[in-house]
Amino acid sequence: MCNDCGCGDPALVPVDVHERLLAGNDRVAAHNRAHFQDAGVLAINLMGSPGAGKTTLLEATARAFQGKTRLGAMSGDLATDRDGERLRLAGIPAKTVTTGTSCHLDATLVHDTLHDMAWQKSDIFFLENVGNLVCPAIYDLGQAANVVVLSVVEGEDKPLKYPVMFKDCDLVLINKVDLLPHLPQVSLQGFTDALSRVMPEPRWLAVSGWTGDGMDAWVAWLNARRPVRKVPRVSVKLA
Amino acid sequence: MCNDCGCGDPALVPVDVHERLLAGNDRVAAHNRAHFQDAGVLAINLMGSPGAGKTTLLEATARAFQGKTRLGAMSGDLATDRDGERLRLAGIPAKTVTTGTSCHLDATLVHDTLHDMAWQKSDIFFLENVGNLVCPAIYDLGQAANVVVLSVVEGEDKPLKYPVMFKDCDLVLINKVDLLPHLPQVSLQGFTDALSRVMPEPRWLAVSGWTGDGMDAWVAWLNARRPVRKVPRVSVKLA
Repeated sequence: MCNDCGCGDPALVPVDVHERLLAGNDRVAAHNRAHFQDAGVLAINLMGSPGAGKTTLLEATARAFQGKTRLGAMSGDLATDRDGERLRLAGIPAKTVTTGTSCHLDATLVHDTLHDMAWQKSDIFFLENVGNLVCPAIYDLGQAANVVVLSVVEGEDKPLKYPVMFKDCDLVLINKVDLLPHLPQVSLQGFTDALSRVMPEPRWLAVSGWTGDGMDAWVAWLNARRPVRKVPRVSVKLA
Repeated sequence: MCNDCGCGDPALVPVDVHERLLAGNDRVAAHNRAHFQDAGVLAINLMGSPGAGKTTLLEATARAFQGKTRLGAMSGDLATDRDGERLRLAGIPAKTVTTGTSCHLDATLVHDTLHDMAWQKSDIFFLENVGNLVCPAIYDLGQAANVVVLSVVEGEDKPLKYPVMFKDCDLVLINKVDLLPHLPQVSLQGFTDALSRVMPEPRWLAVSGWTGDGMDAWVAWLNARRPVRKVPRVSVKLA
């Protein structure tokens, strides 16, 4: 049984219960956001379908930063520690959040997991969400930016068919572009046309986690958003 | 706001509300199932990630049946009539069920949509679910069988990471196998190994909606499950 979907017959779940749930989530998200901001950590909510390439992209991100920026992550999954393990092998301190039957991360899950991690040591912290193009979009986690990974193999129509995910996101990473030559039915233009019909200001980068294509632009996008870290004053004793 | 996810803080949604919701869904699903069985229609709940290739596979299924079997469908999507339109163009009478922000079909949505369709004229009726590898698995719609479409581009680990979807399904269509030569990181064996770790009795077919590979086996699988249609007795007047 899904712990999260309280639907089926809307008459059975009063609207105020939904509102209370989302309001409760928003309160915890605001708390998480204050933590990230105070620590000068850029928090990114990374979303996308199952198999869109979120973990591979984070592995490529670690390679692209070449150890010059401290990355951290938590990875939401119904089962297995596989993604967390891959991230740690890639040099990203990471924890897995096992959601069981839940189809998204929420602010409380994130908050509780942060308490088990030295996330303050990161410059950029990724909240890798459960693979799902629907519900993760409505749960604020306290991130500074929402980034959606969309694999070209999913088809050009996904932004139109899942508009909630795309309309408010800050960046779309059009991933697996190395496969475009083998997909005569789609083109990069087709994806950007679809995004421009859903996103008020289409913002996208063409990337490939496998080949590393587009990683420089992605790193530059992240660096441009890093908050100024409040450096604690240190009294230096002059010799 | 999602009409379906009543979560975030489990303390706010009593367990009995969830149980009532699913029990309510199950009652309507049983009603749908009785309708399908009485009419001798094979109902298939077709699930999979966004972009797994569900609609393309149904288009290929229509071609493979060559008009010899009457197909019908309803297609669940958050927005657009795109899939329904594609299915009708492929010769499958189809209706779109627009779910708005809901991440799955439920038995009531299916029931209400059936009332608007001549579904009884189908031999096989497909319930093409919303693209999602989590929640559709827990909502019975009244189908005779659950079929999951898994694209090879999603990666071999998906059965392990989304076990609820795979453990109880009747068949997995491993789709887009035409792309395997371009994906050195995965193999058909890798997928079937992962399925055998999750499904008590692994049942799968390797297919490609684009090339038509594996369609004969899929058509045979469907035909083997078609119920015997109760032929109404007709009194024939002998000359």
